[in-house]
Amino acid sequence: MSKIVNIGVIGAGRIGQVHAENLANRVSDAAVSAIADMNLGAAQKIAGTLQIPTVTHNYHDLLDDKRIDAIVICSSTDTHAQIIEEAAIAKKHIFCEKPVDLALPKIDRALAAVKRAEVKLQVGFNRRFDTNAAAIREQIAAGKIGQVHLVRIVSRDPAPPPLEYVRVSGGLFLDMTIHDFDMARFLAGSEVTEVFAAGANLVDPQIGAAGDVDTAVITLRFANGAMGVIDNSRKAVYGYDQRMEVFGSMGAVEAGNRTPNAVYLSNDGGVHYAKPLYFFMERYVESFLAEMRAFIAAVKEDRPVLVGGDDGRMAVVIGLAAHKSHKENRPVKLSEISG
Amino acid sequence: MSKIVNIGVIGAGRIGQVHAENLANRVSDAAVSAIADMNLGAAQKIAGTLQIPTVTHNYHDLLDDKRIDAIVICSSTDTHAQIIEEAAIAKKHIFCEKPVDLALPKIDRALAAVKRAEVKLQVGFNRRFDTNAAAIREQIAAGKIGQVHLVRIVSRDPAPPPLEYVRVSGGLFLDMTIHDFDMARFLAGSEVTEVFAAGANLVDPQIGAAGDVDTAVITLRFANGAMGVIDNSRKAVYGYDQRMEVFGSMGAVEAGNRTPNAVYLSNDGGVHYAKPLYFFMERYVESFLAEMRAFIAAVKEDRPVLVGGDDGRMAVVIGLAAHKSHKENRPVKLSEISG
Amino acid sequence: MSKIVNIGVIGAGRIGQVHAENLANRVSDAAVSAIADMNLGAAQKIAGTLQIPTVTHNYHDLLDDKRIDAIVICSSTDTHAQIIEEAAIAKKHIFCEKPVDLALPKIDRALAAVKRAEVKLQVGFNRRFDTNAAAIREQIAAGKIGQVHLVRIVSRDPAPPPLEYVRVSGGLFLDMTIHDFDMARFLAGSEVTEVFAAGANLVDPQIGAAGDVDTAVITLRFANGAMGVIDNSRKAVYGYDQRMEVFGSMGAVEAGNRTPNAVYLSNDGGVHYAKPLYFFMERYVESFLAEMRAFIAAVKEDRPVLVGGDDGRMAVVIGLAAHKSHKENRPVKLSEISG
Amino acid sequence: MSKIVNIGVIGAGRIGQVHAENLANRVSDAAVSAIADMNLGAAQKIAGTLQIPTVTHNYHDLLDDKRIDAIVICSSTDTHAQIIEEAAIAKKHIFCEKPVDLALPKIDRALAAVKRAEVKLQVGFNRRFDTNAAAIREQIAAGKIGQVHLVRIVSRDPAPPPLEYVRVSGGLFLDMTIHDFDMARFLAGSEVTEVFAAGANLVDPQIGAAGDVDTAVITLRFANGAMGVIDNSRKAVYGYDQRMEVFGSMGAVEAGNRTPNAVYLSNDGGVHYAKPLYFFMERYVESFLAEMRAFIAAVKEDRPVLVGGDDGRMAVVIGLAAHKSHKENRPVKLSEISG
Repeated sequence: MSKIVNIGVIGAGRIGQVHAENLANRVSDAAVSAIADMNLGAAQKIAGTLQIPTVTHNYHDLLDDKRIDAIVICSSTDTHAQIIEEAAIAKKHIFCEKPVDLALPKIDRALAAVKRAEVKLQVGFNRRFDTNAAAIREQIAAGKIGQVHLVRIVSRDPAPPPLEYVRVSGGLFLDMTIHDFDMARFLAGSEVTEVFAAGANLVDPQIGAAGDVDTAVITLRFANGAMGVIDNSRKAVYGYDQRMEVFGSMGAVEAGNRTPNAVYLSNDGGVHYAKPLYFFMERYVESFLAEMRAFIAAVKEDRPVLVGGDDGRMAVVIGLAAHKSHKENRPVKLSEISG
Repeated sequence: MSKIVNIGVIGAGRIGQVHAENLANRVSDAAVSAIADMNLGAAQKIAGTLQIPTVTHNYHDLLDDKRIDAIVICSSTDTHAQIIEEAAIAKKHIFCEKPVDLALPKIDRALAAVKRAEVKLQVGFNRRFDTNAAAIREQIAAGKIGQVHLVRIVSRDPAPPPLEYVRVSGGLFLDMTIHDFDMARFLAGSEVTEVFAAGANLVDPQIGAAGDVDTAVITLRFANGAMGVIDNSRKAVYGYDQRMEVFGSMGAVEAGNRTPNAVYLSNDGGVHYAKPLYFFMERYVESFLAEMRAFIAAVKEDRPVLVGGDDGRMAVVIGLAAHKSHKENRPVKLSEISG
Repeated sequence: MSKIVNIGVIGAGRIGQVHAENLANRVSDAAVSAIADMNLGAAQKIAGTLQIPTVTHNYHDLLDDKRIDAIVICSSTDTHAQIIEEAAIAKKHIFCEKPVDLALPKIDRALAAVKRAEVKLQVGFNRRFDTNAAAIREQIAAGKIGQVHLVRIVSRDPAPPPLEYVRVSGGLFLDMTIHDFDMARFLAGSEVTEVFAAGANLVDPQIGAAGDVDTAVITLRFANGAMGVIDNSRKAVYGYDQRMEVFGSMGAVEAGNRTPNAVYLSNDGGVHYAKPLYFFMERYVESFLAEMRAFIAAVKEDRPVLVGGDDGRMAVVIGLAAHKSHKENRPVKLSEISG
Repeated sequence: MSKIVNIGVIGAGRIGQVHAENLANRVSDAAVSAIADMNLGAAQKIAGTLQIPTVTHNYHDLLDDKRIDAIVICSSTDTHAQIIEEAAIAKKHIFCEKPVDLALPKIDRALAAVKRAEVKLQVGFNRRFDTNAAAIREQIAAGKIGQVHLVRIVSRDPAPPPLEYVRVSGGLFLDMTIHDFDMARFLAGSEVTEVFAAGANLVDPQIGAAGDVDTAVITLRFANGAMGVIDNSRKAVYGYDQRMEVFGSMGAVEAGNRTPNAVYLSNDGGVHYAKPLYFFMERYVESFLAEMRAFIAAVKEDRPVLVGGDDGRMAVVIGLAAHKSHKENRPVKLSEISG
């Protein structure tokens, strides 16, 4: 590997811009050599700001470019699996936004290509790199809470996505909870074996009309005997609510929300703090950077990635099980979800 | 009603002592006239300290005593329903520790007697009188969080009860979670319609051998569409963990644990706070008092009690549904639980 | 000493009522045998509620009553020193509200009488018995913060007293800060040697017109080299602000305010907690009880009191030094304050 | 002004590196064109990493370079005033680290040169740009706490600087407290008129031997009648303690420390949080960036800087007054400090 890892970014939307900026300005040993988007103007705008030399509307140009070591896939979900496969064949290392796909056969085919090509694939479960999650995982690994009994995740968005997005999102469990499923596995240090998902349509009737839920409580069972519980809402008016707790035989470790400042006002009406940081672009700004640093380090030093293709696949499996559980109002074993 | 409400206390165990002391020393307009316990020595000891004039091993003496206005039942659970019935027939107002009974027919017979006698029956769900729960309920009632979407309760004991107790307790859902079921109804302002209870035996294998679980995640659905989730453990090494949150369309209101002081130590190893108050005798000392003041006020002023016989019954119904749900590993509708 | 310590309470005002109730209902081994107040009606009212057998407008009756073991002085400040002296001569143990007096010669004469009579005198610095202060002191004594470098006290009242009271109060430093001076000595474990008091009149111009300040910053030097700083205000609109911190070579220990509940509301406007408990009657309800239990225990078991006459005297000496410092706008050594 | 502000950085030490990196990678519309340090190797190392085209050991090369719009002075304090003067003559805009100088005549001469040249001078009081300080100032400006009565600053370093540094630092008040003096002015929105500084040598006897103090309590009076209090220590073993509070007629606004995560561990020994961020390089990483963005914006848009030369001068005046106050153990008026 050359001293600098040359990156091609596919997708110039919001998250593509975040990764491109981080790679260009804040990740040592990385350079953004090219950016591709069918919307060429969007790609050109980012390229201009970040002085990216190559801009194209055709991502195949990046796969064909011998100087490019790795690609970062930020295009729409339905394109992920195919681009992974093509990139693997082109011997590029791959960072792909979550989810890999919503259909297991497509995921499996992409992962098989990655395996054959012996390239690296990191999936964008950025929250594992958040200082809260990392500190919790570290304390568990250090034995601070003994054996894990319960993983509890509160995960609520500040506002629902547009209805057009809801309709193609795959549903709450595959679109939103998928991050929490990955976090639950990460924190529990064990695989999920059974899911019971109870959903409701309380936030906006149009979400229900679109066939989705906006509020959910999901119970998990893990192979190591531990249990988990996740609650989701598409709309927390006070902002992005991202808390978690792991309870064990020797204690509990818990993470609260992060706020823009540590200021509180005391007045006649009480004591007042700031709301949590608004949404993932504010809340996880540092974990987007950290995951990219980790990816570049894995590529440069030829180490395993910290969030691999199997992690990406497993979160989808749990999501499918949750979806089925909700439809059938019964606990669903993961073994019921066939590839 | 005379100026002073004369009370007969049945049961001189730990909780009987708490109620007797509060009634004797800290509740205006109440006096403890008599105390009964089959263990006469225990009753005499309390009577000596609190200067209670009448002591007996036979609680019927209290029911026969015309000077006694109300009785406080703190005897073992299996005696509650019968004493309620007898007390009602004797025209005494009744405060009864939870649960009324574990069997619905016995509960129904006791409640019917209370209804016929037109006496008051308050059930000892003291936690509703805790300042945290009361403040949450008040904020919900004031519309501060809009429509309720989710009730979340963390309820963990510091240590499991003795195995002999576990064996006759009726199981975690009827013994421990019953308080949380009542709290969930209180906070949601709606009736539970369906329960899914996932339990595990993680704390102590002997609890499992005794046929019970020690860890649980329970999902609730309410008539108003809201959902609820309760997590329980019989053993939180850091003490009694009693937190709750109600999340709604306009915000969320949450209660943390209470601590013996507000002191924190900052040193080389971090910042350190005290553990939560140890267990219910420490944590709910003020709510035991508050519920008794409320009972005496209801009696004196002939007002409805704040926690009635139907509340006591409903918590048992939910507990039975949870028990069934856990056994059958499926959600159970409350309508499946017959009287 | 008989099994029960018989108490005579002098003064049936607000604090007299608190002590009488605690002694009657919540302190083991104590009984209130008599209560005296020039306002006989006030005394009678308390006596009626608490079933105190003897009521009088003349406190000498209590001193003459052989059955009374100890007196609790809750009358106006200007009477304290004389009653202490008379009670000592009558061989009664004495609990006296702070301050003993504002004039050192009167204090010294009272303390001399106490010493000659070999009775106990406890001064009402109740805050030492608060769980926050006690926990801090305990951690310091356990060496948790090493050598004390800085004691920092925030002490702000929710509202100023009536102007008539301000005029006879002896001024902010002797009326309000006196509690903080005692706390500073208690926490530092060392004597104050020098004071610099900076005061201002910011809350209410009428307080300034009455010759007093309502806002102050006081710097202390202790014999052990440590420093201290107290800030005071007569009006914190958010309630009674009672925080403290001791900083040392190995860490810091700090106490925050106490609140009526641990509830917080998160909504569109932020995260909101309750204000601190309103004022000393709410905040220190338990420490009033604890100091009285300690007094009764000291009397019964013939142990030294935890806050003695010398403590009462020293707080006044510091207050006089602060007063002088403020008038002369210079640091004043305690050695400048003659008896 | 060209679209991009071309910067010359003078000084390649720790803080020079921070500013250079921020300007190169994270400040829009800025580019680092040159870097100078007598230690050429240090400058070359930074230049290599950040691709800075010009490197020199002689800062005059930067002043002579017509393409450079502004210089950022990060050299040792004793060179600041002269470089400011020379840069102003060269018509460069100037960002200068604090303090401008320790001697008022040198400061005044530098400020006069800036004024004559009509260039911008921003002084590096970065803490004003911290989200905590900014939020407090904003709430005060919005009238949330009414009229300011008290400004309270806790400012403690995690470890003292090397003794060689202490000896030339100008003393605690001019080296460390100077940041707090600026913050006090910023928060109070008023000028300091009088200072009383009480210092002690408690952390390390060698600091005392070097003629300095390591612990201090400083009382301030402001022109608007408000008071202020700062406490300092050179060694807080739990990390960098940077808290502040402004108390006013309608409330108080307070900022706590910031931590690396929001995680707490509850176990048998209590509840444990992370220590505050270690020191200024961790704590103020974002405010170093924000001040530089503000400087570039002021230059580009020809707006007044947010922290000007007069602010730099005034903090030194207060520091000199504090130094004198401590030496003479008396309050010192700022009017006593002549230029």
